[in-house]
Amino acid sequence: MKNASRSNLKNRLYVIIFKSNTPAGKLFDVALLVVIIVNLLAVMFESIDYYRSNYGYWLRAIEWMITALFTIEYALRIWVLNKKSKYIFSFYGIVDLLAILPSFIGLFIAGTHLLVVIRTLRLLRIFSVFQLSNYTKQGNFILRSIASSWSKISVFLLSVIAVITVIGTLMYLIEGAENGFKNIPISIYWTIVTITTVGYGDISPATPAGQFLASIAMIIGYSIIAVPTGIITAEAMKSKKQSITCPRCFSDKNTEENNYCSTCGFLLKKE
Amino acid sequence: MKNASRSNLKNRLYVIIFKSNTPAGKLFDVALLVVIIVNLLAVMFESIDYYRSNYGYWLRAIEWMITALFTIEYALRIWVLNKKSKYIFSFYGIVDLLAILPSFIGLFIAGTHLLVVIRTLRLLRIFSVFQLSNYTKQGNFILRSIASSWSKISVFLLSVIAVITVIGTLMYLIEGAENGFKNIPISIYWTIVTITTVGYGDISPATPAGQFLASIAMIIGYSIIAVPTGIITAEAMKSKKQSITCPRCFSDKNTEENNYCSTCGFLLKKE
Amino acid sequence: MKNASRSNLKNRLYVIIFKSNTPAGKLFDVALLVVIIVNLLAVMFESIDYYRSNYGYWLRAIEWMITALFTIEYALRIWVLNKKSKYIFSFYGIVDLLAILPSFIGLFIAGTHLLVVIRTLRLLRIFSVFQLSNYTKQGNFILRSIASSWSKISVFLLSVIAVITVIGTLMYLIEGAENGFKNIPISIYWTIVTITTVGYGDISPATPAGQFLASIAMIIGYSIIAVPTGIITAEAMKSKKQSITCPRCFSDKNTEENNYCSTCGFLLKKE
Amino acid sequence: MKNASRSNLKNRLYVIIFKSNTPAGKLFDVALLVVIIVNLLAVMFESIDYYRSNYGYWLRAIEWMITALFTIEYALRIWVLNKKSKYIFSFYGIVDLLAILPSFIGLFIAGTHLLVVIRTLRLLRIFSVFQLSNYTKQGNFILRSIASSWSKISVFLLSVIAVITVIGTLMYLIEGAENGFKNIPISIYWTIVTITTVGYGDISPATPAGQFLASIAMIIGYSIIAVPTGIITAEAMKSKKQSITCPRCFSDKNTEENNYCSTCGFLLKKE
Repeated sequence: MKNASRSNLKNRLYVIIFKSNTPAGKLFDVALLVVIIVNLLAVMFESIDYYRSNYGYWLRAIEWMITALFTIEYALRIWVLNKKSKYIFSFYGIVDLLAILPSFIGLFIAGTHLLVVIRTLRLLRIFSVFQLSNYTKQGNFILRSIASSWSKISVFLLSVIAVITVIGTLMYLIEGAENGFKNIPISIYWTIVTITTVGYGDISPATPAGQFLASIAMIIGYSIIAVPTGIITAEAMKSKKQSITCPRCFSDKNTEENNYCSTCGFLLKKE
Repeated sequence: MKNASRSNLKNRLYVIIFKSNTPAGKLFDVALLVVIIVNLLAVMFESIDYYRSNYGYWLRAIEWMITALFTIEYALRIWVLNKKSKYIFSFYGIVDLLAILPSFIGLFIAGTHLLVVIRTLRLLRIFSVFQLSNYTKQGNFILRSIASSWSKISVFLLSVIAVITVIGTLMYLIEGAENGFKNIPISIYWTIVTITTVGYGDISPATPAGQFLASIAMIIGYSIIAVPTGIITAEAMKSKKQSITCPRCFSDKNTEENNYCSTCGFLLKKE
Repeated sequence: MKNASRSNLKNRLYVIIFKSNTPAGKLFDVALLVVIIVNLLAVMFESIDYYRSNYGYWLRAIEWMITALFTIEYALRIWVLNKKSKYIFSFYGIVDLLAILPSFIGLFIAGTHLLVVIRTLRLLRIFSVFQLSNYTKQGNFILRSIASSWSKISVFLLSVIAVITVIGTLMYLIEGAENGFKNIPISIYWTIVTITTVGYGDISPATPAGQFLASIAMIIGYSIIAVPTGIITAEAMKSKKQSITCPRCFSDKNTEENNYCSTCGFLLKKE
Repeated sequence: MKNASRSNLKNRLYVIIFKSNTPAGKLFDVALLVVIIVNLLAVMFESIDYYRSNYGYWLRAIEWMITALFTIEYALRIWVLNKKSKYIFSFYGIVDLLAILPSFIGLFIAGTHLLVVIRTLRLLRIFSVFQLSNYTKQGNFILRSIASSWSKISVFLLSVIAVITVIGTLMYLIEGAENGFKNIPISIYWTIVTITTVGYGDISPATPAGQFLASIAMIIGYSIIAVPTGIITAEAMKSKKQSITCPRCFSDKNTEENNYCSTCGFLLKKE
């Protein structure tokens, strides 16, 4: 009897916490989003001198209350599920854990409690709350485009890193410590600032040779942005047609447009 | 009789104000554009110390005269129309109202009268004045490309905001107030400056760890620009015509515009 | 007799000056390129203090000699041609005139003689000299891509200018003269620096509200770069297939792939 | 007999050094990668004051040991090969030579020994070591895209250089030495910094006319980035498979990979 009511409670909690298609479930999720935003604002205000000295006590109190709430929520999430490990190691499961850890670590290591901003990632739930399944699909689309062009992009990035290392060292040789290029790591940092066209200007070349090499680095950086853009665009357009697997030869080169398998000639659909 | 002449006047004013295919209507619209540009120049010159102290009186006089003109014009526009609410809540209707409000608000709140630069938006009428309907179509094309890729872009933007918040907080922890990262909002501002590759250099990392994290932020910013570009390009190309398959030869080289199949000459649609 | 020899000389000069497929003609063109580069170097060195004070006399001498050469060349070009006006008003004709004018104007207005750098444009002849007709074709391809997307791009630019004007004025109101935003034109200059992601940092917002608005401007600038890129890419790909005009109905919707006119069914090519 | 064992040794060394599909060959290649990374770290740490003064002796010792290793390796590579010249003038052959030269040149010219960072390029071997032939293919894909759009890009770059030279000279005339535009080469350097949207801010215009011209330069730079991107994207997509038309139904949905027509099932090629 007691067991049944507990299982009953578990079920009701499961629906509230994990589903957002009932009024209670939706309310729970919206409340969660509000709490996260309040939390982020509290962290930001706490970092501003004026608010920390005047309202620091209250801001910390809010943070601890929210941490308590999230800890209880995390415990409940695990409790109500049957396949606990699936949730724990899912993307949202790890984010939920990371969202409460910093507060407790912050008790021992000063400053780290600020890492509660990881709670920002919980905001990504917003898409499931408002049943924006279309948005989740779009997110997957972007990730898939990047993933399928990953081998091209990694070759590109490794080449860029090699170029950056060489230019960084040359700038160190040309400009030297007196112009701010104190050592090779800082020269490489400057080269990244230049190639990515960020250009802080905290360090900038002062000799004609250095300015000449810097100009080359800038033009390289300005030109090569076209390469990843071209790659991703080509992928984004390629991934439009989805492939259909032939039931006879298992070839996946067919698309919806095909009537016959292009590999073995098997009839895929009646006209 | 009096009613008729009033309705007559209304009709003539309607043609002058809202249509630009009569000489009087065109003159009215061109005059409007000239007045807006004179107004913008007056506002800009007034903001420059030298001109304000020497010609301030005249510049203010010009602004008030133009405000009076625009107020009369706005009243006339409403008066001559039968379906008044349709205009009032249209894009141009709201712009026309916003174009006169700041001057009157400026009487009570100092400085806000400068918001008359909203009148710049009235310049967008230029396309309809010179019957550049093609341009309006192009504007719609751009908006449609953005709109149809909006769900992809908003997922992208929300992810970027989450990344920016986390990097901003980490930089605050690493660099701290002594290097300009005074609080989390300023760190987030710096992260936006970096990720968008603007890079003012008013704040820049000074510790090796900060420079390393900054380098990662820059490379992220430099790389992800490819994502919205890829998305919009794919949309811009998708919105071209869709192909129609010929029922005789199965060629898909035909589009909606074709009357006969371009491969075998089969009649695709009756004229 | 005298007339004949003059016409003979004219012809020989014409071949040397305007054609580059004879040894003499090619030599002439290559000599021209060398002279232009020497000239550019002379102008650059003259602008550097050290070289001006030490070698200024020689550098000016070189410039005047080259100006004399170019003046004679320009006169010869006009003399040897029959259809003089066609050359004078062609792109290269105007560039050739602009290349000699600054030196003479420089006699009356100090500094303007430096505008001889317009001679750089003469270097574009390099493509015709080395019979790089393919390159000329590519240049035309780029220009055509830009031209055919011009109506889209101009709508885009006008909207961007309106946004820049409004943001610039708001920044002037928010930040004011004490933070470097001295007047609206300078605020607009700053907004352009920000939206184009250049970000000098000579002026940068200091108030939280200003930094917030700046962040929005940066994100706008970072996002909208995708729009012209998408437009030009779509154009660059569209302009691949050239249309064929149907001899019966004058429709230009057919491409090389079509056997029958897609509008009237007329047989375009035999199989 | 002696000859045979030497040829035997040669063969075994050849497999170890040039092939990575045996355990020994793979071990050799991985060891090489580790040594290169150790070497790069040693060079970087040596450039940092603190480490040079404390551990300089050991860091130099590591560098010389690695140089010795690489010299021996380079000699062995040449020795074991039959077609020596093919390797020596291949990309990797030149990189391997450049990787050892700086250390020896550094004995005579101070500082140049730091150019051993060219060894970074040896890291590109990583792709062949882990049999990432797919990555090599992708690298070739990128290079081919760039190569086939090279004529377009070079026309574009030459035009940009002409524009940069003219804007640079105009800025020198407008701003002059008192605002940091000391001479034309520095003005051109500033123009490159601006057009590529890097924007250090070490030099920035201070006069209204200069700021106006700078704004134009920025807008040019911001807009023309779309051109190379569009070109490369178009190339990246063109290099996808070409379609094959089915001789029975004239469908062009088939590619080289298809054995049977995907529309009517007709046999396109014998296996």
